[in-house]
Amino acid sequence: MSGLKDDLMARVRPDIEKIEAQLKANLTPHFDLVSRTAGHLMFAGGKRLRPLLIVLSARLCGFDDPFVYKFAGIFEYLHTATLLHDDVVDGGTVRRGKPVTHSIWDAPTAVLTGDFLLARALSIASETQNPRIISVVAEVTEQMAEGEIYQLDKKGDLSFSEAEYMDVIFRKTGVLIQGACRTGAMLANARPQWESALSDYGRNMGIVFQIADDILDYIADARELGKAVGADLKEGKLTLPVIYALKQADPGDRAEMEGIITRPDFLEADFNCLIELINRYDGIEYAQKTAAHYLDCALDSLKPLPDTPTRDLLAMVAEYALKRRK
Amino acid sequence: MSGLKDDLMARVRPDIEKIEAQLKANLTPHFDLVSRTAGHLMFAGGKRLRPLLIVLSARLCGFDDPFVYKFAGIFEYLHTATLLHDDVVDGGTVRRGKPVTHSIWDAPTAVLTGDFLLARALSIASETQNPRIISVVAEVTEQMAEGEIYQLDKKGDLSFSEAEYMDVIFRKTGVLIQGACRTGAMLANARPQWESALSDYGRNMGIVFQIADDILDYIADARELGKAVGADLKEGKLTLPVIYALKQADPGDRAEMEGIITRPDFLEADFNCLIELINRYDGIEYAQKTAAHYLDCALDSLKPLPDTPTRDLLAMVAEYALKRRK
Repeated sequence: MSGLKDDLMARVRPDIEKIEAQLKANLTPHFDLVSRTAGHLMFAGGKRLRPLLIVLSARLCGFDDPFVYKFAGIFEYLHTATLLHDDVVDGGTVRRGKPVTHSIWDAPTAVLTGDFLLARALSIASETQNPRIISVVAEVTEQMAEGEIYQLDKKGDLSFSEAEYMDVIFRKTGVLIQGACRTGAMLANARPQWESALSDYGRNMGIVFQIADDILDYIADARELGKAVGADLKEGKLTLPVIYALKQADPGDRAEMEGIITRPDFLEADFNCLIELINRYDGIEYAQKTAAHYLDCALDSLKPLPDTPTRDLLAMVAEYALKRRK
Repeated sequence: MSGLKDDLMARVRPDIEKIEAQLKANLTPHFDLVSRTAGHLMFAGGKRLRPLLIVLSARLCGFDDPFVYKFAGIFEYLHTATLLHDDVVDGGTVRRGKPVTHSIWDAPTAVLTGDFLLARALSIASETQNPRIISVVAEVTEQMAEGEIYQLDKKGDLSFSEAEYMDVIFRKTGVLIQGACRTGAMLANARPQWESALSDYGRNMGIVFQIADDILDYIADARELGKAVGADLKEGKLTLPVIYALKQADPGDRAEMEGIITRPDFLEADFNCLIELINRYDGIEYAQKTAAHYLDCALDSLKPLPDTPTRDLLAMVAEYALKRRK
């Protein structure tokens, strides 16, 4: 595993460095406060997965103009905007191992900084002068907001189903990563089959990434993850390992799990007990298998694309999304 | 005055009705909750000033395609998004005479509904397939967010100057109304002089509108205004009547005013005393004169445009912005 990570990191480092430089350069609002608040989370060691996927998608379709690095920032700004608003929404305390933005400044500043980043993303999109690309960016933003509202509405709902979960993670993560890969292809003026292949890759890859992220909440410790243990559950978010285990559990175990889930501020001992119950019903294993299925789909989606080192890199990124431990 | 209002309303009613219908029709997200939360404030009797200005600007430049009514919604959605986020940011309680959205649902829902409306606005903009229009809409959104952050940063700052105030209201209100008038002209493919004239009209008209709005906080009663008396001040926002009076006041009166302003949850008697002090130094009169100056600028800006009943209407709207009592 650490072989895959090291190999991947070595290959993408030059791109990541250019992405970082552009993320900073394009965050030039008139007021210093905006730079500081936006920068707090933006430069706290995000993985830059979304911009990287744009750069690789565009390159795979033959586009290697330096503008791609500026353009790639769009999806990192959108992502950061949703994280800022999410943390306010969820009352989170730690993100990427740092106190959340709204605890250093305040919730209003975090909300407005998110708005600024949403707008910044759409401003950069409009620089392409390409109405199709702009439409995709606007639609992605719209779908993400709807997905978040839907998730919020379902908060703490113990009957939240696997199908509803898949719908939420597609909207929350899938559409953004799909949009990144697709607009990368659009930037390259790729033939329709390639655009559609990269769009499929992105959708599947986004689902892999989010399921893997949700699994981490049940296996990683807080230091590794940069957020509190059991954070999703404390926010009333049911994810696949729990959803599956709840469905499989006998009435007694189900009642015990529900008791822990609905208890505000459960203790670490409760959480460990919950993990035991989830494992008894193979909840984590099921989630891993589901993610592996979408990984296969992601790899299949790449087939119509030219067989180049860049395509191999996209495959590696998808594999890493599943196997990463933080 | 009620003559101007009645006359204006009678003339614009058919447009307003079409705008209302489109605002509803284009608010069709997948989840009912989004419609309800967005609709709560959206259909609480807003004046629809921004969409009306688009329709009139486009018509004055010769564009009367029904698409203008859909397009006009962009600026109402943007406006509503900022109101939703503002109310969360300011901790407001009443808006347009109704409890604020975040008190009926919650702050997270209000934040996410605002995000959805921002994205919806940009989606409609992208339907024009016109990159210049899309750029303007994105830039307007960006500037508004920056303006809000700047205002937040200056909250409660007793040295907040008239120049800083003008900068904030330009960003908060001016850019949106300027953008509405300008994109109306762009939709009509207007010649550059007309686009620039409508852009100037919008900027000046936006400043008139905001100063008049800020004056109302000191002269209207809560029922008329649909928000609490002294609301701006309670939120730590210094507006022109106070800024001017503070600057003019002798040290004793200034100290008394500062005492009231900085007292959290001042009483109505305190507020009445403050108004007396503001009037002693002609704060309201000065603000009215300033607004009247920008009204003259707005009317001047209209001169290069064709002398038609639509141009007269734009002039009436600007006059009404200054003279309205709620």
